[in-house]
Amino acid sequence: MDASLSIEELCRQASAAAAVLAHVSTDEKNAALLKIADQVWNERQVILDANAADLAAARQNEISEAMLDRLMLNEKRLQGMLDDLRHVTELGDPVGQLLEETTLPNGLKLHKQRVPLGVIAVIYEARPNVTVDVAGLTLKSGNAVILRGGSETIRSNRALAAAIQSGLKGTAIPAAAVQFIGDTDRALVLQLLQMDRYIDMVIPRGGAGLHDFCRQNSRIPVITGGMGICHLFVDESADLERSIEVIRNAKIQRPSVCNALDTVLVHQAVAAEFLPRLVERLAADGVTFRADLGAYDLLNKRYADCVQPAGPEDFDTEWLALILGVKIVSELDEAIAHIAAHSTAHSDGILTENAAHAARFIEQVDSAAVYVNASTRFTDGAQFGLGAEIAVSTQRLHARGPMGLAELTTYKWIVQGDYQVRP
Amino acid sequence: MDASLSIEELCRQASAAAAVLAHVSTDEKNAALLKIADQVWNERQVILDANAADLAAARQNEISEAMLDRLMLNEKRLQGMLDDLRHVTELGDPVGQLLEETTLPNGLKLHKQRVPLGVIAVIYEARPNVTVDVAGLTLKSGNAVILRGGSETIRSNRALAAAIQSGLKGTAIPAAAVQFIGDTDRALVLQLLQMDRYIDMVIPRGGAGLHDFCRQNSRIPVITGGMGICHLFVDESADLERSIEVIRNAKIQRPSVCNALDTVLVHQAVAAEFLPRLVERLAADGVTFRADLGAYDLLNKRYADCVQPAGPEDFDTEWLALILGVKIVSELDEAIAHIAAHSTAHSDGILTENAAHAARFIEQVDSAAVYVNASTRFTDGAQFGLGAEIAVSTQRLHARGPMGLAELTTYKWIVQGDYQVRP
Repeated sequence: MDASLSIEELCRQASAAAAVLAHVSTDEKNAALLKIADQVWNERQVILDANAADLAAARQNEISEAMLDRLMLNEKRLQGMLDDLRHVTELGDPVGQLLEETTLPNGLKLHKQRVPLGVIAVIYEARPNVTVDVAGLTLKSGNAVILRGGSETIRSNRALAAAIQSGLKGTAIPAAAVQFIGDTDRALVLQLLQMDRYIDMVIPRGGAGLHDFCRQNSRIPVITGGMGICHLFVDESADLERSIEVIRNAKIQRPSVCNALDTVLVHQAVAAEFLPRLVERLAADGVTFRADLGAYDLLNKRYADCVQPAGPEDFDTEWLALILGVKIVSELDEAIAHIAAHSTAHSDGILTENAAHAARFIEQVDSAAVYVNASTRFTDGAQFGLGAEIAVSTQRLHARGPMGLAELTTYKWIVQGDYQVRP
Repeated sequence: MDASLSIEELCRQASAAAAVLAHVSTDEKNAALLKIADQVWNERQVILDANAADLAAARQNEISEAMLDRLMLNEKRLQGMLDDLRHVTELGDPVGQLLEETTLPNGLKLHKQRVPLGVIAVIYEARPNVTVDVAGLTLKSGNAVILRGGSETIRSNRALAAAIQSGLKGTAIPAAAVQFIGDTDRALVLQLLQMDRYIDMVIPRGGAGLHDFCRQNSRIPVITGGMGICHLFVDESADLERSIEVIRNAKIQRPSVCNALDTVLVHQAVAAEFLPRLVERLAADGVTFRADLGAYDLLNKRYADCVQPAGPEDFDTEWLALILGVKIVSELDEAIAHIAAHSTAHSDGILTENAAHAARFIEQVDSAAVYVNASTRFTDGAQFGLGAEIAVSTQRLHARGPMGLAELTTYKWIVQGDYQVRP
């Protein structure tokens, strides 16, 4: 928390704290999280004042109202954050779990045991709740964490991190297990990404630019994720009425997030019946459409106000807004090929009553989450029953899709014998 | 195989082949591996001639006899490689395995399914058998592979890769699933490490310099491993006679590999009794010793010919030879602290009859493989029951310790519903 701490020293302290934290019991970790929650609440006035200063600075920089809303804290939001943190104490602790126990023919007893990853660096933008969320999940899974928030919320994050560290005092978790980089100089991120001696995993949470910067410059493994160009394919046999409700949910329930729907693909046999109904239902919610040639021909006369022809980039765009791409495809294979070419492999689904088509879609579409007859909005750690999530991975190594507590651990092999030697 | 293919084009072809290979059945993959084995055998004369040319060039470069032996192929060694390849067809196929099947309260059916990683690049040095080993394991697990061998065996590897690709003709696996970089220019490795668009994992197999080069320059996740500074701690209560046999096995059974023993730590209470017996037994095998001050005092008069004082770097050296560090420690905690400071977190063990000490050692030592009363030489995919291994990971993400077929896969989440929407 000392702003003058060098990045290397801060990493070294985190690493030393991680070695202690790895052996703290579940009860002690839970007690520490509850103490953090109390301390953040006790310091709420300092935190809200810092947040007000962040908001004032943001207004001077003419940041959009939507962004201002994301930055803003109040007592109710703070209470919600702390409820989430207290909820983490109710989740099972993955550390110590035994996996794949076996006895080898030579009598050696072999098993894997889950252990924390060690030190996790999280580089994030905007929302201050990430500071508390990430601290809770990393500590519960036995990991030290290095937090690096965005400049828009630097004052709020600094106050939150101070409260978290102060909450750790007197608990079994060393306060150094939560490190906060209080300086917004981007050169520090570059230094951080070289600290493979101390840091075991980097999680960027932000736009494509941040992810690319981390992959380009990191000596430490980077979890890429959080970007979703998501598809639903309406097959010939789909229940059209119910499909409209699934698409509506996937598009409008929370349009600004990564698992929101971006493109609907429609089988040509049902396009003429389905598309006008879809457009009428969703236009009432304020959705506008980017249609390929076939769909545009079908829709533009009656719905000229909300349908426009898709531009060359539109099927490669994550909308994060009330915009939906629509495209007519000749059959299942064309839908699968379109998804292979345009998806970010986050969440893609088929709406169908044809079991063979569902099976082929599941087999052929290689996304982190593949859906049959459900909204893409379910790709989420809490929805999938993991209790919480630190990120949604769209890369293939270590973890894919929602990452909960178990995905913040690794394992060691334990071999117990009676003085066996290898022949 | 076309030497003029650009790295990007070669990666693109591998990626396209991977998309096909991901859906090839287990039987078809096994049939293809058997055809490769036949084809390599058919082309053995071409391969052995190429190997003879590699050996001639190596002799001109005054390479050591030990290294020449590692490069050398003959019919017997070739047959051994092909036996190993045929053995891979008998291993279970991880692709398609279902994990963690569950039904959520809202009725969604959720499971994970194992899928291939995609494209794996392996950058290796010296031994030509790696070419066949790696091709077998990557193809069996449904992955395309890009092989980049060392310059010492470039002719042998080129001939082996040609035989592998030729063996794939007429099988369900596209020949492009095995790519070989036939040019030894190191700039090509740098290009390869930028191909995160096509390659999902990089496995370096070689010395520390190669691993560091990959971590420094790669945009693709790198599996670090294969370097082991391994320890055994002889506790006060250990069965000393049997401990000597375990240490002897760990040191001399195959001294040139990563799981061979480097340092013995001995509890002070048994040092005077144990160390002379250890030295007498292992000196007969040609082992020499690097002793810390305490051990040197104890040993140097009677064993001056094979014991010398440990230099400042000796406890941070992976010997890969018949040399063994010895150090007397005051108790278990000092042994654990020494291991934390000097181990590469590959394989470390305790020899003890004290269950509480064994438990504390297991809890506190965070290495890929932690042993109680057994030789460190067991850290190996085949020995651990994985059937085979592509590498031994000493990093923490994705996989730790021996990596078999399952560690060459990832998973996708499959969600099947009845038009559920998120509330």
